[in-house]
Amino acid sequence: MSVKANPTAAIVVIGDEILSGRTQDTNTNTIATFLTERGIDLRETRTIPDEIDIIVRHVNEMRGAYDHVFTTGGIGPTHDDITADAVAQAFGVELPLDDRAWAILDAHYPPGEFTEARQRMARIPVGGELIDNPVSRAPGIRMQNVYVMAGVPAIMTAMLASLEPLLDGGPPMLSATVTVDGPEGHIGMALKDIALAHPDVSIGSYPYYREARYGTNLVARSRDQDKLDAAIVAVKAMLTKMAIGFS
Amino acid sequence: MSVKANPTAAIVVIGDEILSGRTQDTNTNTIATFLTERGIDLRETRTIPDEIDIIVRHVNEMRGAYDHVFTTGGIGPTHDDITADAVAQAFGVELPLDDRAWAILDAHYPPGEFTEARQRMARIPVGGELIDNPVSRAPGIRMQNVYVMAGVPAIMTAMLASLEPLLDGGPPMLSATVTVDGPEGHIGMALKDIALAHPDVSIGSYPYYREARYGTNLVARSRDQDKLDAAIVAVKAMLTKMAIGFS
Repeated sequence: MSVKANPTAAIVVIGDEILSGRTQDTNTNTIATFLTERGIDLRETRTIPDEIDIIVRHVNEMRGAYDHVFTTGGIGPTHDDITADAVAQAFGVELPLDDRAWAILDAHYPPGEFTEARQRMARIPVGGELIDNPVSRAPGIRMQNVYVMAGVPAIMTAMLASLEPLLDGGPPMLSATVTVDGPEGHIGMALKDIALAHPDVSIGSYPYYREARYGTNLVARSRDQDKLDAAIVAVKAMLTKMAIGFS
Repeated sequence: MSVKANPTAAIVVIGDEILSGRTQDTNTNTIATFLTERGIDLRETRTIPDEIDIIVRHVNEMRGAYDHVFTTGGIGPTHDDITADAVAQAFGVELPLDDRAWAILDAHYPPGEFTEARQRMARIPVGGELIDNPVSRAPGIRMQNVYVMAGVPAIMTAMLASLEPLLDGGPPMLSATVTVDGPEGHIGMALKDIALAHPDVSIGSYPYYREARYGTNLVARSRDQDKLDAAIVAVKAMLTKMAIGFS
């Protein structure tokens, strides 16, 4: 790519329930789509267990390696919610009750409902900013380039929207797809030539198998619309020449 | 846990299409469920781009850290399928055309259809064993403790079934769920006491939000049925005492 590099990002999904297979993670896909639309390159995701030393290690590895790090999970009121503790430890700061978070939660719950368990959610690492949570009020946390979000998808999605003004992206990645009638094995070598001839376009070949039929999605991605268009023209010309159907 | 540690596993999902948000990964959940049922502890998953140096680095990190490493994606016939190349490089071996893989593919395709692109799928790192692929024949690869599988879910699932006889697990993790009518903030502190009193049982609290109502799944996990049962009895007694509905 000759254009300036876009900001990079990583996701750390914190949750035994994902690793056990009990829960299908969807937050990664939501965040990935959000970032791609904004021109931020998601470079890596990890899913790790609810264990404090492990969370600390991965948060520190990722925040040093990428411009933005998003975590999901582990900021609720129960004993297994230890992400705030881990993030405070990763940054080497205390985790006191925070006046801003306390005020939000205290105003939200009916009298007697702001329980000791829920008061845990008012603990914010020193230096942390709050991420607005319009769904259930308990805030997320921004510590420098680390964004600590809830695991419940509806809440995570709302927090992500709250973060939008903070996240400057580069030119968004553009993409175009050609769906090929048939397996990718018929087009592999010709496609490689097109990929080599269009160095500013990334061309991926994604086979699928549905109802006992093979098909292939060819996805071209670039930040430059003209170069993207040229690659798609070349792909379609190749398929036409090979008498392979596409849409 | 006083029982002998179970084998550990990790997953490396290789795919720009996952990182861009274009595709929702489901292979991780399939593998996670498979491993949990067999008493193998999935400890970490990573999703990384289709870039050879990055794949090499992560495969080497993971195969040193875990008993089993499963990769998905990047073993098809096109130019962006570079996982076999990366695995060979990670192990420091050549990647020749393999007689066994060649014979399988040559027998599978009609005359003239075993194209140059498809011949790429007969390349196996030196020392690698084949993983049977009953769906589309092109084999996966086992290199020591690394299992290289396809990205297409139907094919990946078939390869995983082929691997089953090779994977010795420990006692499977047992689990039981109590679904609570209401938010987890009401039960956090009492639940912590139960968790502390049942050290061989892991108790997770997973809130959800559906149709404008909060609920919580309390999931107890243990390898010991009696200890699991005792923890569930304690959880239900707690909820009854607090007059909180559950099912």
